[in-house]
Amino acid sequence: MRIGELGRRTGVSVPTIKYYVREGLLPPGELTSPNQASYGDAHERRLRLIRALLEVGGLSLSAIGEVLDAVDDKERPVHKVLGAAADRLVPGHTSEPDAETDLARDKVARLIGARGWRVSADAPAAEALTVALAALARVGHGGFGTGVLDEYAEAAERVARADLDHVRRQVAREDLVESVVVGTVLGDAMFAALRRLAQVDASARTFGSEVAG
Amino acid sequence: MRIGELGRRTGVSVPTIKYYVREGLLPPGELTSPNQASYGDAHERRLRLIRALLEVGGLSLSAIGEVLDAVDDKERPVHKVLGAAADRLVPGHTSEPDAETDLARDKVARLIGARGWRVSADAPAAEALTVALAALARVGHGGFGTGVLDEYAEAAERVARADLDHVRRQVAREDLVESVVVGTVLGDAMFAALRRLAQVDASARTFGSEVAG
Repeated sequence: MRIGELGRRTGVSVPTIKYYVREGLLPPGELTSPNQASYGDAHERRLRLIRALLEVGGLSLSAIGEVLDAVDDKERPVHKVLGAAADRLVPGHTSEPDAETDLARDKVARLIGARGWRVSADAPAAEALTVALAALARVGHGGFGTGVLDEYAEAAERVARADLDHVRRQVAREDLVESVVVGTVLGDAMFAALRRLAQVDASARTFGSEVAG
Repeated sequence: MRIGELGRRTGVSVPTIKYYVREGLLPPGELTSPNQASYGDAHERRLRLIRALLEVGGLSLSAIGEVLDAVDDKERPVHKVLGAAADRLVPGHTSEPDAETDLARDKVARLIGARGWRVSADAPAAEALTVALAALARVGHGGFGTGVLDEYAEAAERVARADLDHVRRQVAREDLVESVVVGTVLGDAMFAALRRLAQVDASARTFGSEVAG
């Protein structure tokens, strides 16, 4: 199909499509004449993926580029690709060198040990958890982080098991890696929405009786 | 304390503090002379809260302003404030009028009914879940959304119960509302990090044997 048709099908403007091609996010179309390119189903699919990661997942274009590189790198073993994708999908906050960070880092290392998780205490996700716990302590709500940590970890294991059960059912490597990326990014959005719904329900049961809007 | 001391304690520059005051996010200091204002512990605490919501929570300054308005509105009953805070903490994505959205909306309504959640199917969080499920379907991964939905909902209930158990232990109304806001925003960051850690563990158990970095 021509670029105009690709734009109509996906709701993305032609200049934006051209921009994604220039930035290397979308492979160029096949040239059918010196100034005419043809795009296929793979382009349409990739374009929808970019938009979903951008609009629903809230990823930056540069983060999307890194994640797509991991999806497209056929040489890596699946396990390494999954790790790389997970690492790149962690927001890159830098911890501050203060007492709250030191305490939070200890807490994270103890949690990983206690749960027997096969993950290094230096992994980007461990650092992200440290940053969140330290930020809670710094705003005077350290008790929240400590109080809910075990329940959250239990729920996170449950969610990760469901994620992996789904991933395991994918046959083709490309589908598998793409489904990890999509599931991780859109799964966060899904879970955050479900948590809000469950909070409104729990809050209605605790503090009020009407159905909340 | 003077504005310079407030800046040193919180790591926020003086121009930024002045900007927050102009935007109404931070109350002005008490004037001690025509061009000298004094700031107290409440300012320091509020400033740390703004930074945490901005940097770790990823909220925009306008979203932070709306949330702080809910925290500061003393007239509302607690249950309504919790609902308002939860609603404002949902990313405001608009659903597209297509078949995927209609199917996703049905799925969300059925889920709320099946779990007996006391929440309207028009709540912002229900709309956010609809948007995420429709986006999954549009990128060809609708099976993921459907496959994990019940497990996610179960985990979300567990997390929301832990959230509310913590909130219930707060005595003062101000602390209670603030702890909902902080817990909701930083709790999402905590949970996303824990989900990544648990995913790396589950992935190592499924696809490899080494400890992943």
